[in-house]
Amino acid sequence: MRATTGWRADGRAATLRQVTLERRDLRPDDLAVRVDYCGVCHTDLHSLRDGERSASVVPGHEFTGEVTEAGPEVTRFAVGDKVAVGNIVDSCGVCAMCEAGQENFCHEFPTLTYGGTDRHDGSTTLGGYSREYVVRERFAHPLPTGLDPAATAPLLCAGITVWEPLHSLGVGPGTRVAVAGLGGLGHLAVKFAVALGAVTTVISRSADKAGDARRLGAHDLVVSTDPEQMAAARDRFDVIIDTIAVPHDLGPYLRLVAMDGTLSHVGHLGQVTVEMFDLLAGRKKLSSAGSGGLPATAAMLDFCARHGITADIELVASKRVNEALDRLQRNDVRYRFVLDLSDLGG
Amino acid sequence: MRATTGWRADGRAATLRQVTLERRDLRPDDLAVRVDYCGVCHTDLHSLRDGERSASVVPGHEFTGEVTEAGPEVTRFAVGDKVAVGNIVDSCGVCAMCEAGQENFCHEFPTLTYGGTDRHDGSTTLGGYSREYVVRERFAHPLPTGLDPAATAPLLCAGITVWEPLHSLGVGPGTRVAVAGLGGLGHLAVKFAVALGAVTTVISRSADKAGDARRLGAHDLVVSTDPEQMAAARDRFDVIIDTIAVPHDLGPYLRLVAMDGTLSHVGHLGQVTVEMFDLLAGRKKLSSAGSGGLPATAAMLDFCARHGITADIELVASKRVNEALDRLQRNDVRYRFVLDLSDLGG
Repeated sequence: MRATTGWRADGRAATLRQVTLERRDLRPDDLAVRVDYCGVCHTDLHSLRDGERSASVVPGHEFTGEVTEAGPEVTRFAVGDKVAVGNIVDSCGVCAMCEAGQENFCHEFPTLTYGGTDRHDGSTTLGGYSREYVVRERFAHPLPTGLDPAATAPLLCAGITVWEPLHSLGVGPGTRVAVAGLGGLGHLAVKFAVALGAVTTVISRSADKAGDARRLGAHDLVVSTDPEQMAAARDRFDVIIDTIAVPHDLGPYLRLVAMDGTLSHVGHLGQVTVEMFDLLAGRKKLSSAGSGGLPATAAMLDFCARHGITADIELVASKRVNEALDRLQRNDVRYRFVLDLSDLGG
Repeated sequence: MRATTGWRADGRAATLRQVTLERRDLRPDDLAVRVDYCGVCHTDLHSLRDGERSASVVPGHEFTGEVTEAGPEVTRFAVGDKVAVGNIVDSCGVCAMCEAGQENFCHEFPTLTYGGTDRHDGSTTLGGYSREYVVRERFAHPLPTGLDPAATAPLLCAGITVWEPLHSLGVGPGTRVAVAGLGGLGHLAVKFAVALGAVTTVISRSADKAGDARRLGAHDLVVSTDPEQMAAARDRFDVIIDTIAVPHDLGPYLRLVAMDGTLSHVGHLGQVTVEMFDLLAGRKKLSSAGSGGLPATAAMLDFCARHGITADIELVASKRVNEALDRLQRNDVRYRFVLDLSDLGG
């Protein structure tokens, strides 16, 4: 086993403490990656603070870094290469979904970057809030040159999560897209939609976001707490990307979807109650998206490199991780915290 | 006013009794139609037997008959023409949905054939369980020649309800379609899907339906109560038309939808609880459909004429309407009751 340093919450504690962690010895197709930057995702907050938890957790599933060692069968990377890793680090590789390049829908469930179960030794995976990660090369991506490595890290989870529905729903020039919620996912959805040529609107609870929406390239803002604005936006959007992370009534948003359009919620909302009439009245569709497969992730990174898209981030030393989580819980970040793990040495 | 005879339930009574009804005098664009055949729809059962009801009701919203009189501005029909009328008899005519030929989604809500509110005099509309109906010519369709008028009646509600999602979801040669539930709507969905060239599967609670499914042209049957069959059908269908009229868990059906496919429930299911993960795992979509606009209804009737498609019906004299409703409630009909209204005279 290999020793590294990382941030772990033990037992039921919600506070992360710096500890020494073990990583597996490299398998033939593994890379050892020095983690330089790791985004702070809402999922990390859930895994630490929601519900009952008994096991330890090391969060972090969107990170960039550098290859420091490569197994003998590695072919795509060499020591010194910059890489990016997202929220999936393995899958069965043989089911219909894996064969379609949708490892995120693997019938045997993909191995998550943290809190997952390793397919070979049964151990629980430990995430990217640490100075080293060991990953199958197949699940690492080359870091695009020209993009800031810190601001690229959030693309690997927040980015691909909103890219998938925009891409699969065929968003392109002239598509009328609305993005509900302007946080870590939402601000990337706006950047992507604008770069894809969509007529892009932000739906936000407050008119305060108008300046930010414009700066991100959005063409319009609809204030969801203003009944007149919501009524005027009825049936307006071909696609709504709903990035609101807390339980909420989907009805008001479905009513803004145009005939034959789709409301796609991104992230994990759990069980929701839907008034089927809101779908019926306009032949509307409800869908849900979360992360993506390897080919889509590669395509997104390529798109970002060509369009110069990264996340708007606040970079903090990893020793400030608990403070960052507190602020994320209060939505006090524009738009994504990224941990700088160099303070862990190594 | 004009007098006619029909079947009405008064106050809270669930039993229909033969009564004399009043119809409006013809407006300039009205037709008087002698109703010959009227289908018995699940909605009729709901309107009579579910929930609280204080007003009287004359059900019936899928009927065929003959024009007996025409207002002075009528241009498309003449006395003696055979016509067909569905569940919408008026709409605002100027909203975006009406302009798109989707009167069923009219922003001012379409006027329903019964239990609706007339846009001109505010009266409550009385349905097709009667010997005469007065309707705007715009909302009447020519009865296709060559189709049995009795077996055509159910196309006007059951037919268009399943046609809309099949058509809007692009079902055609090779599409993998499943139809859940083999009743009035389901059997027509199977006939349509087969005629459209789809690879068509019936999903039924019981293997007893295998013979019927084959006879209707289906290629396969999946028994929903057999876990092995359901597991084997995972991710198999591009489109599932769910015609099950009672509240049910959508999860098992969503798991049969292929990646990027759609589960479309037809009819009025009210509020449903959806586990969003069932949508997320395969980028699946949930939609709902109910009735259709005038152009789609005309297209469906044309398709039926070309392919010789009508409903499989049990024709009963209208005086047996209460017995037919009892049997419908027990699902004891293959597949649609149609009332023969000639026993009302006229």
